[in-house]
Formats: sequence, C-alpha cells, structure tokens
Amino acid sequence: MELKLAFIGFGNVARAFARLLRSQSARLEAWHGLRWRATGIATASHGSVLGEDLDLDEARARVEAGSRLSGLTGSADVEDSLAVIESCGADLVFETTPLSPVDGEPAIRHIRRAFELGMSVVTANKGPIAFAYRDLAETAERMRVCFRFEGTVMDGTPVFNLVRDCLPSVTVVGFSGVLNSTTNYILTKMEEGRSFHDALAEAVALKIAEADPAYDIDGWDAAVKAVALANVLMGADARPREVRRTGIGSISEGEVKRAAASGAAVRLIASAERGDGGLRLIVEPRIVPLSSPLGIARGTSSVLVLTTDLMGEIAIVESDPGIEQTGYALLSDLLSVHELFKRRAIE
Amino acid sequence: MELKLAFIGFGNVARAFARLLRSQSARLEAWHGLRWRATGIATASHGSVLGEDLDLDEARARVEAGSRLSGLTGSADVEDSLAVIESCGADLVFETTPLSPVDGEPAIRHIRRAFELGMSVVTANKGPIAFAYRDLAETAERMRVCFRFEGTVMDGTPVFNLVRDCLPSVTVVGFSGVLNSTTNYILTKMEEGRSFHDALAEAVALKIAEADPAYDIDGWDAAVKAVALANVLMGADARPREVRRTGIGSISEGEVKRAAASGAAVRLIASAERGDGGLRLIVEPRIVPLSSPLGIARGTSSVLVLTTDLMGEIAIVESDPGIEQTGYALLSDLLSVHELFKRRAIE
Repeated sequence: MELKLAFIGFGNVARAFARLLRSQSARLEAWHGLRWRATGIATASHGSVLGEDLDLDEARARVEAGSRLSGLTGSADVEDSLAVIESCGADLVFETTPLSPVDGEPAIRHIRRAFELGMSVVTANKGPIAFAYRDLAETAERMRVCFRFEGTVMDGTPVFNLVRDCLPSVTVVGFSGVLNSTTNYILTKMEEGRSFHDALAEAVALKIAEADPAYDIDGWDAAVKAVALANVLMGADARPREVRRTGIGSISEGEVKRAAASGAAVRLIASAERGDGGLRLIVEPRIVPLSSPLGIARGTSSVLVLTTDLMGEIAIVESDPGIEQTGYALLSDLLSVHELFKRRAIE
Repeated sequence: MELKLAFIGFGNVARAFARLLRSQSARLEAWHGLRWRATGIATASHGSVLGEDLDLDEARARVEAGSRLSGLTGSADVEDSLAVIESCGADLVFETTPLSPVDGEPAIRHIRRAFELGMSVVTANKGPIAFAYRDLAETAERMRVCFRFEGTVMDGTPVFNLVRDCLPSVTVVGFSGVLNSTTNYILTKMEEGRSFHDALAEAVALKIAEADPAYDIDGWDAAVKAVALANVLMGADARPREVRRTGIGSISEGEVKRAAASGAAVRLIASAERGDGGLRLIVEPRIVPLSSPLGIARGTSSVLVLTTDLMGEIAIVESDPGIEQTGYALLSDLLSVHELFKRRAIE
C-alpha cells in the first residue's frame, strides 16, 4: 500500500519526522508493507508547495538553510496551508503548525478541512485536542477517516494509544503527571542550586523553553495537556480555562532546597479526578517524594500516572526525550493509521 | 459475537479472571459486542468438567469451598485437562496451570494441543514463553489462531501488548526490570529494618511467596520472566538456564541499610542487552538510585525499563498489584483476541 502524505507545518517536529521517514523507509516497507510519497508541504515563512513526489531531504535542507520551498524539485507553489490541504490529494495530513494557546487555531481549521475532504489526520498539536476534541472526533468518525495525536502529550511515549489499544475495557478515573519539560528542567536545576532566573535562562538557551516562556512557567502548557488527556481518556469535554492553574513563578529557591533536603521534590503536577462536583482539573506545584513515579521525572523527562478501575495505578515514564521522540510519535501514528487502512482495504 | 471459553487450571488467577468476566459482562457486551460462555474447566485436584454453559460463580464457590466440580449444574465429568481441551469445542482456552520451572510443562503440551485443534490460547503461564515461545508462536501462526500471554510478566500491565501495539517499528535493544514481587517485598522490608528471615516469613504468611520460596529467592522466577521478555520482545530464542543468575539469599541486612543510607536501594534486577557475544541475560541484585525507575518499585510493585532504538528509554510501572490485576491480564488478552476474531469475521 502506498500512502500520499502532506505536511501542514514543517518545523522541528515535522522535520524530525521527515528524517525518520527517510531513514526508516526500508523498515517501513519490509515490516509493514508501507510505501509513501509526499504530495504537499505548507509552511508559514518558507512558502507552500505541491508535487507528485516531493523530496523531503531537499525540503528539509532548504528550510534549515532559511531558504524558501519555492523551486523544490518537481513542485509547484501554492498560496497557503489551506491551498495545500485542498489540492494535495493526500491520504494522510500531518498537522504540526505552531499552537495558539488561546483557541487552538489555525490547527483546528486545518484538521476540519482535511476531514471534510476525506483525509485522515495525524497531529502533534495539542490545541485541537484541548479545544475541539469531541467535535473533531465526531467529524472524523462521520467521514470514516482516522484521527491520531499521540505526539501531543509526552512525545512518542504511548499514552493515548496505550489506553485505547492496551487497556481495553478499563476506565481511567484520574491521572497525575509531570508533563511540561521547561518547568521541570527549571525545578531540577533549582534542586541543584541554580536560581530560578539562571535556570530559566539556561532552558531558553538550550531551546527547551520558548523565547517567551510564560506559557510554560504559568502552567498553560501543562493545563492544555491535562485537558487533552481528560477529553480523550476520561470522556470529558473540558477547556483549558477550566483548569485550576498555578504556575511555578512564585516557587522560591528555599522551597525547592527544603524539599530536596527531606527526600522530596517540587514538581509541576497536572492532575484530573472525578469528585462530587464533577471533573476537577488542576495544574499546580506539589511536593512529591523523590522516590515515586512523579518524583523520578528529572530535567526534560516526563511521567504520567493513570488511576484506573480494573488495573489500579499504572505509570509510564519517558526519559530525556529529544526531538526524535516527537518525530517518532508521528511515525507511530502513521503506522496505526496504515494498519486501519490495510484492514479497510480487506473489508 | 459469542465466544466459547475453556479454563485449563482454575486456581487464584483463573478465578480472579472468572470474577471479572462475570462482573464486567454488561460492559463487555455493550462496549465490545462480546458475549461468552464457559464450556470446560480442568483442575488438578477438583476434577474436570464439560458443559454447554457452565456457571463460573458456582464453579468458583465449589473450588473455594474445597469441593469437587463433579455435579456442577449442567456439567459432565471428564478425566483430565487434555480431555477438556479435546472435547470442550472452545474458541479460546485459558491456560493457567501451575508452572514447572524446569521445562514449562504441562502448559506447553496443553497449548500445543489446543492450537492443533484450531483453538486460540491465552496464558498467564510464563513457562511456555520461556521454554517454547518460538515453536508455539509458529504453530499458532500456521493454524491461524491467536496466542496471548500478557499476564506472564507484570500481571495486566501492558508489556508485550505495549510493544506490539503501541511501539510499531521500534526495536527493543535491551531492558532492565524489577519483576519478582517476593524478592522485592523482602528487600523493601529489609530497608525498613526487618531481617531477611522475618521478611521472608512475612511474605510467605501474606501469600506473596510460595511455601517453598526458593524459586523466587534464587532468582529463577525473574530469570524465566527475563527469558520470556527477550524471546518475545527481542526475537531471542533463549532458555532460562542461559541466564547468569544470582539470587538475594546472600544479601546482608548491612548492605541493604548502607544502600538506603546513601539514597539507593538493593533491587533484584532482570536485564537483557545485546553485546559482542550475543544476547546477555542477567538476574542479579544491584544497587540502584532510590529516585530512578528501578528504585521506585517498592513492595510488590514492579517496573520494566525498555531501551529502544527509536524511542530511547521508556519505563512502565505497576503499583501494588493484587490478584485482580492478573485477572485483568486475561481479560485484556480476551479482548485482544476478540478484536482479531471480529476482523476475521469481516474478512
């Protein structure tokens, strides 16, 4: 089976995925019977192109050199991302545009349009899951297309796919997790004696944090992820503004050191639980034992502890991920969609 | 779809599963379209029966009261487990007989016979996976039946299913884990100041350990699990005797206390790695940081750290499991097999 792929957004994550696609091509064909070609690439600042079989290596090289995609071998220029979606004729669209934390756009618009045109979508963009999951999932179901988003939380570590595929009939009744790497990197460095401001500057220099890291520091990123998890794993229909949210901006170095001295650690914990008043979503710094699933996540590592009805507590831990792990999220979603396509071809 | 189920072995694990099957019946039908009935139960010391629709609650009550199954409503007696396999006409056999650590029998014989008769098998028995995985998997494939065994390592926590279903195209290049609850319970109690012998006696009293706990203490159980993991996840064809194995019998209370005093812990670690000399399988006590995936497994908790090519290190942690979690392993395997049956019915 050959799949036509389109890329809406071609930043770090999409390019890491494109690298994997190229390096794993032989494995994908031999192990999974999957061949692919790229028929569209849309970017915000390097132009957008269509083609029959675009060269992803060449496209990566151009973007990484700061050049435009215009003139890419065998390509034709088009106006923008929506034009790519409408004319790429892809089976599967990879949506990785930058996230607007306010409303999840333009990703939601992109995904909806792809669905309407009968295309499946893989996204690493948590906005659509936090702001429009139920509506998008229903549209995908109605159009009989696939919708996958493993990369939105904990990169390629199985979270959504874990519950859907490996915990059948289990109900997730709550969760708590360390889900934001910038804040966790800062808190870990503060444990080691760095000041908040030095640790933050370091995170920015290492590109763990954005140039404006307020989105991380204030707990917005963790809140959006908590909502994505609650919407998908717990059947909620929550929005990020419903999260009771406290960032790490007011954590003092003294607090972090005192926790460390007593075998504990300050972590920014995103959690959900069902109570009398319905679902409670909370993002806040908490003191947790160092020797506990939440305590072992240091630096950019992350962890999610699921509380379930039939299986008690299960934790999954991702250690020191790089951009490759986010790229793998898209690859695993591609293979999951491909499996479904293969089944339907048989039906 | 209605599945006919047979139980070869009806001990604690099978009965926990039977309880779940009964309590989750409505959910299984509503969520998964799965109905079932039991057509055979074989035990070593309570007799063996066949029937059209055996009452699992009644069967559980009899076994738990120490009575024989003979006379169970609507049942006919048969001689033994092989007679049940040969005459039960089941779609799916649950193999949970006690394990022989020497050769994996009689489970291997049971599973092979079921496959030959066109029946799928779910087992919680690690012997067959450690002693005959490749052969059994090939037979299952040839007969177009399913073979599932999630409960053999870490109860119902996804391990085999996690790699197969959620980490497509990933190669597992090694692992390390805390996989044996008896030894981990003892080591944890020693950290708290108990002597080895008192901790062991406590584990036996709580039925965490067998009356003869040598199989755990000497690292055999962990070795068999390590081999099962290597055979399935790493494509090995190893046997338990190939594991370099050191138990916890010679660990002193002083060593455990010194480790604890330095923020570390002694854990019985089962590990695999590929080196120049091929696959190296090791079970041995190691000192690990308390604040690490291997260090946080306390008491009967367990953890597996997978080292992979595309996803780096991923850990999965099971906290304080009970017999219900092992029962759930069989339920999740049942649902996995049912999904495959549904697909084939469509094909």
